[in-house]
Amino acid sequence: MSDALNGKGRLPDATRRHVREVADRLGYRPSAAARTLRTGKSGLIGLTVTTYGDEPFTFTEFAYFAEMARAATSAALARGYALVILPATSRHDVWSNVALDGTVVIDPSDQDPVVSELVRQGLPVVSDGRPAGSLPVTAWVDNDHEAAVLGILDHLADAGARRIGLLTGTTTDTYTHLSTTAYLRWCERVGQDPVYEAYPAHDPCAGAVAADRLLARPDRPDAVYGLFDPNGTDLLAAARRYGLRVPDDLLLVCCSESTVYANTEPPITTLSLKPRRIGTAVVQLLIDAIEGVESDQPVEQVIPTELIVRTSSERRPPRTTVSPPRSPEEG
Amino acid sequence: MSDALNGKGRLPDATRRHVREVADRLGYRPSAAARTLRTGKSGLIGLTVTTYGDEPFTFTEFAYFAEMARAATSAALARGYALVILPATSRHDVWSNVALDGTVVIDPSDQDPVVSELVRQGLPVVSDGRPAGSLPVTAWVDNDHEAAVLGILDHLADAGARRIGLLTGTTTDTYTHLSTTAYLRWCERVGQDPVYEAYPAHDPCAGAVAADRLLARPDRPDAVYGLFDPNGTDLLAAARRYGLRVPDDLLLVCCSESTVYANTEPPITTLSLKPRRIGTAVVQLLIDAIEGVESDQPVEQVIPTELIVRTSSERRPPRTTVSPPRSPEEG
Repeated sequence: MSDALNGKGRLPDATRRHVREVADRLGYRPSAAARTLRTGKSGLIGLTVTTYGDEPFTFTEFAYFAEMARAATSAALARGYALVILPATSRHDVWSNVALDGTVVIDPSDQDPVVSELVRQGLPVVSDGRPAGSLPVTAWVDNDHEAAVLGILDHLADAGARRIGLLTGTTTDTYTHLSTTAYLRWCERVGQDPVYEAYPAHDPCAGAVAADRLLARPDRPDAVYGLFDPNGTDLLAAARRYGLRVPDDLLLVCCSESTVYANTEPPITTLSLKPRRIGTAVVQLLIDAIEGVESDQPVEQVIPTELIVRTSSERRPPRTTVSPPRSPEEG
Repeated sequence: MSDALNGKGRLPDATRRHVREVADRLGYRPSAAARTLRTGKSGLIGLTVTTYGDEPFTFTEFAYFAEMARAATSAALARGYALVILPATSRHDVWSNVALDGTVVIDPSDQDPVVSELVRQGLPVVSDGRPAGSLPVTAWVDNDHEAAVLGILDHLADAGARRIGLLTGTTTDTYTHLSTTAYLRWCERVGQDPVYEAYPAHDPCAGAVAADRLLARPDRPDAVYGLFDPNGTDLLAAARRYGLRVPDDLLLVCCSESTVYANTEPPITTLSLKPRRIGTAVVQLLIDAIEGVESDQPVEQVIPTELIVRTSSERRPPRTTVSPPRSPEEG
């Protein structure tokens, strides 16, 4: 009966139709689970953020992940796959309740247990973020985070910064790690003492506290780069508390995809990691791997970043004498 | 062995550990499909747009669906569910390859075959958009589309419109249907001949053609409301082709969640349907139904809309004499 209902096998069409009608009358429905057991392929691909392990983290609340997931969804649908957006923690039963053909993992930490387990099961895993250490992913897509950070630090130094601070994270994913080491190396090269605060980036309260701590230090920086989405507004709020004007007393840049920063007071310079391009690329690589397609694309793809320069990192030129408009009396 | 691996059943802990170690060595992995067969619950909820049937339609490319899906994803993750974003067509095998606990369906058409089949299977279905006809959904969330359209038509008439046109769709979902009948009734009430073009809204090219056709008519409207996201830019382009200035010769409003319309030339008035609130509400209702929770919330929820008034629907007041700034020569 199963072959008749699936339109496969060697039953004559009339028989097939008859079986189907009877099955319909009986309320028989094909079991998704049974079918998956037989064919071994489900048409489902997973997407999750494993950086924060079992910490609660609704990642779609962050602009980067939301944009990335949107692009990934579109790319999956366009190739006939459904995207399953999974809870970040491996604790959830749902991981063992869905038969995935492969998974996209965002910012895995080193020795990430979810990635290790999926790879052990023989499933393709493509990571957004180059894998730390020996994490054996099928392919990865990432930005050149070191080059991006060095570009921002040079941009801030060009704008007059003498002591640049960093807001960074406490996790071991390569985004956080590479960005931080790039900062430390830059400091060493230019002879500046590093001034940074690290916090668990999934916790927005911790971010506000870290921003405050950074500006409360005796060696207060005159410019800050924040690695995470809410750092711009957190730093603006902290600057206000300490009576610091942006950009006059404090230059600011943060990594964010949020359009909010075009309209803050003042607008804040942001680094965009181009999550839509990344979301599309990871899904293409994953489906290629699932289908065994020989890809023209390298299995390691680096997507360019974009620095969107706004008022917060442009120090005004030194005042020159400006002639006031002539009043009628002078005419 | 299955009980040992799942941490259930009555095996002593030592036995359980031993079985697990042996299973690990043998490369045994728990089968998601087998587990789903046994427990009957998967922790997975579906989301799809069925309005356009088997037409290709990557719905996440539209701002409304992207925002709604983002909110739905967050709401699902927050309650420990994974969201499966499914291809719009029932043709895809993937529908039968995933065991869903329930599904969110966006803008179902009347007699929607996907909804009918899911309900027949006894699965909870919550629709974004009140169900047309006798579609037996578990619950729905929607806006009051009639009130929203009447509000827009009054707003345009107040701004001086004498003949208001409509860009609408050819599908039978209630959004399109209720918005169109509200327009027709308004026309009857104020004694205006209806001026509208309908097109299949999943096809962006058809939208551009319909906008052009609407403005090429001998009974050309002096104001247009477009029901779909790209109508604003399509109408602006068509207006330019016919030498019509917005808002002087043509007033424009469209229903869109896109931030693009804050920066078009001129900025375009938009109706927001608040997709984030809808996405959150549908998932809460669906999970309540799956878990058999007695909900405080009604199973029919109406979310308020918001008209964001911009230049395109504000006719300038009649010119009054403005004194030019005095030049020095006159001082």
